[in-house]
Amino acid sequence: MRLVIDVPPASGRPSDIAFFFEPKSVAVVGATNNPLKFGHYLLLNLIDLGFKGKVYPVNLKADEILGLKTYPRVDLIPDEVEVVAIIVPAPSVPQVMRDCAEKGVKGVVILSSGFREAGGEGIKFEREIVETAKKAGIRIVGPNTTGILNTSNNFTTSFVPLPKLRRGNVAFIAQTGLFAAAAFWWILSAEPFGLSKVMGLGNKSDVDDSEALEYLAHDEDTEVIAMYMEGVKNGQKFLEAARKAAKNKPVLILKSGRTEAGMKAAISHTGSLAMKDEIFDAACKKVGAIRVKDFEELMDLAKAFALQPLAKGNRIGIVSMTGAGCVMAADYSVEYGLEVSELSDKTVKYIESYLPSWLKVKNPFDSEMLFESVGPEDCLRISLGGVLGDENVDCAVCVIPSSPMFAFDVETSIKEIGEKYPDKPVAINLIGSKDVVDLWTKQLEGISVPVYPSIQRCVRALAALSKYPKTSRALASDS
Amino acid sequence: MRLVIDVPPASGRPSDIAFFFEPKSVAVVGATNNPLKFGHYLLLNLIDLGFKGKVYPVNLKADEILGLKTYPRVDLIPDEVEVVAIIVPAPSVPQVMRDCAEKGVKGVVILSSGFREAGGEGIKFEREIVETAKKAGIRIVGPNTTGILNTSNNFTTSFVPLPKLRRGNVAFIAQTGLFAAAAFWWILSAEPFGLSKVMGLGNKSDVDDSEALEYLAHDEDTEVIAMYMEGVKNGQKFLEAARKAAKNKPVLILKSGRTEAGMKAAISHTGSLAMKDEIFDAACKKVGAIRVKDFEELMDLAKAFALQPLAKGNRIGIVSMTGAGCVMAADYSVEYGLEVSELSDKTVKYIESYLPSWLKVKNPFDSEMLFESVGPEDCLRISLGGVLGDENVDCAVCVIPSSPMFAFDVETSIKEIGEKYPDKPVAINLIGSKDVVDLWTKQLEGISVPVYPSIQRCVRALAALSKYPKTSRALASDS
Repeated sequence: MRLVIDVPPASGRPSDIAFFFEPKSVAVVGATNNPLKFGHYLLLNLIDLGFKGKVYPVNLKADEILGLKTYPRVDLIPDEVEVVAIIVPAPSVPQVMRDCAEKGVKGVVILSSGFREAGGEGIKFEREIVETAKKAGIRIVGPNTTGILNTSNNFTTSFVPLPKLRRGNVAFIAQTGLFAAAAFWWILSAEPFGLSKVMGLGNKSDVDDSEALEYLAHDEDTEVIAMYMEGVKNGQKFLEAARKAAKNKPVLILKSGRTEAGMKAAISHTGSLAMKDEIFDAACKKVGAIRVKDFEELMDLAKAFALQPLAKGNRIGIVSMTGAGCVMAADYSVEYGLEVSELSDKTVKYIESYLPSWLKVKNPFDSEMLFESVGPEDCLRISLGGVLGDENVDCAVCVIPSSPMFAFDVETSIKEIGEKYPDKPVAINLIGSKDVVDLWTKQLEGISVPVYPSIQRCVRALAALSKYPKTSRALASDS
Repeated sequence: MRLVIDVPPASGRPSDIAFFFEPKSVAVVGATNNPLKFGHYLLLNLIDLGFKGKVYPVNLKADEILGLKTYPRVDLIPDEVEVVAIIVPAPSVPQVMRDCAEKGVKGVVILSSGFREAGGEGIKFEREIVETAKKAGIRIVGPNTTGILNTSNNFTTSFVPLPKLRRGNVAFIAQTGLFAAAAFWWILSAEPFGLSKVMGLGNKSDVDDSEALEYLAHDEDTEVIAMYMEGVKNGQKFLEAARKAAKNKPVLILKSGRTEAGMKAAISHTGSLAMKDEIFDAACKKVGAIRVKDFEELMDLAKAFALQPLAKGNRIGIVSMTGAGCVMAADYSVEYGLEVSELSDKTVKYIESYLPSWLKVKNPFDSEMLFESVGPEDCLRISLGGVLGDENVDCAVCVIPSSPMFAFDVETSIKEIGEKYPDKPVAINLIGSKDVVDLWTKQLEGISVPVYPSIQRCVRALAALSKYPKTSRALASDS
């Protein structure tokens, strides 16, 4: 659909891109009072979200925008300008870039599209801005992206109207604009974790995944890195960055362009270079990055890593109020490399003391009879609490039928158990009446206990929490 | 946890079990005015849901329950009794069964637990009731189950208080009680399809999966059969029933007990016999049953088959407003055996007529630029409509970012397209702001267009709709 012609990237630069996230001053080229234009929202986001740095709107035809003094050109701003966000049509960007060079700014974020990805003249424009930037020592994020978001200082170049940001420990790197925005809306509105930094890389004319990874690996606000990518420009450099990052924190990678049809689509979309998927997959394993198959898995694992502790080993305890849940959880555990361990005598005796004498307790534990004897709160306390407290258990999955009939304070029950065993991760599966499932999910995720709509997804998340520490240790001992 | 001792099943009976779903008269043994007991809700469901057959409460100590004349024993009911639902403690069931034999009823549904699955005396009780039934020619569903639900006449033996039932074309067979109930609540409250029949088989002391399948294969209200099972008693008989059913309608099977740990848990749970999973898997493929890996996939495929037409071939059209969606959908299509086909010249020209001349249209189609030129409604009409109308396309996936910014009437747009191409299945992926995703999902599923929270799940569902007709044809030509 779009022509793809290679534009030489402005590589070989020093890789400190921290200033993009913490600029003391930012100019917005293309800011406008017109609420039908994206440039309006870019400026509005900076003002409304409460960014404390200096903000300079740039617009040839206005003296003041949204109450801020406005300048006709970047180089006419009297104060220092660290970062420039550019959202004017592509043909005007080369001149803006020359103004930026004149002013001596550190970096630009180019939101506008119509560059390499559009083919034709766009390729020329991209080449021009990259050359100007290179000569002037200016770093570029983009073009064709939503750029930067930092929830710790409310700095953003997003031109999508944003709600109040929730801080969190997950960083998200995305290749493409609209998908990054949609993913971002989803996370803000639906996920219990928050974001530390978001980085849309767009055409990657300069700053690329490797640098993004390198920066986020050392970012103190970021504990989990989630990324979507379609292609790798410099495989060796990327994998080295991934290895270093994965040593410090989990790196989750959703890479598409796995099949020939996908690669063809990726070339049309972002001009990504094809890479045999088996090779990328093997490389990810080698460098300790966690490859996921879809966006749902990316969110599932990000949620687990964001909310729960890592597991000290791979032994899972299974507690289910339905017998079917026990069987399914045992299957998935084995399939995801977890061990359905034997419970210690102490735990068995403890739980059996609440049950008729003919009932034998083991792992998986079917808690239906216990539920019938002692009620839901005590059932959870004794079963999930007992299993989590077992020395042979490193993590636990718990299946709870959710119906108005079983109304009980699931939040308090699980909270007490979680506080007692803060070092062992737990994942909960709820199945039943949607109203109750939704309410309990909100309550449990509000206290940082992840809930998944399937047992398989619970187990997959726990398996990731149990594998990562081993990976991380192995990487640390390698270097 | 529970002892498993074999109780000989009452096999070799004629397999017409239709009367269990359409009894002219039913007795409820264990009915009670006490609203703390399950027997109360069993009777209440029959009254409240509007079952039109005759209902006879049976209770030694009451003359009238919920306004109905009550009898002390089944054999003292003066009129004919076709089916008896039994919900008294296990030790009392053998005597109730003798009363049923005396009365000459056709079948009993035993809801009570405490039989084979409980070990000890329970084994004896189960053996006793099976022997009495066999001699008297009485068929048994259960024990240890929720039994029967028929939404076409509102007959049920469920003792879980039920909301008003929604009729539908999906039948659900489940091995176990609480899981069946939880799944049932979920379907009623969260899924856009309705149920025709539900059958909880419990301990399968008599009626088993094979007979359930045989009955549902010929049930006119049932177009899709979804089942959960942990073990197979008589593999040959089951597979033959599955083959016959799969010829008529899709049979979706979620079978757990796939791994050794899972099998061990299944033996504890339902005394299911172990079967090597590879063998079961190969057998399913051979008989044309569709094996799924988790409950989510069971629901996903049931939804697709329940709402959408079958695809005439395996050629998928991909329309995504995000470029990333195009790439991911292409990957999943190949991975699930679909062909990302070339669009015909006619379609290409049609869509290109709405785009700048330098934009080339192909499959997958990235509709972002079209969206920007013509707005959301026309974008969908031209892109999804164009692709679905293409002679080289048998089904389509469409990815729509969902944000308050993009507010438009997605329901009307998609409805018009669907009505124009009623023979080609469509699946929609929404990603964005949760409020909008939830609203649009409800609207779209309200007009029978399935929405999935991931592109992968869309494609998996379309692949099933495209594979099944081939399976069905092959089975038909075999026999």
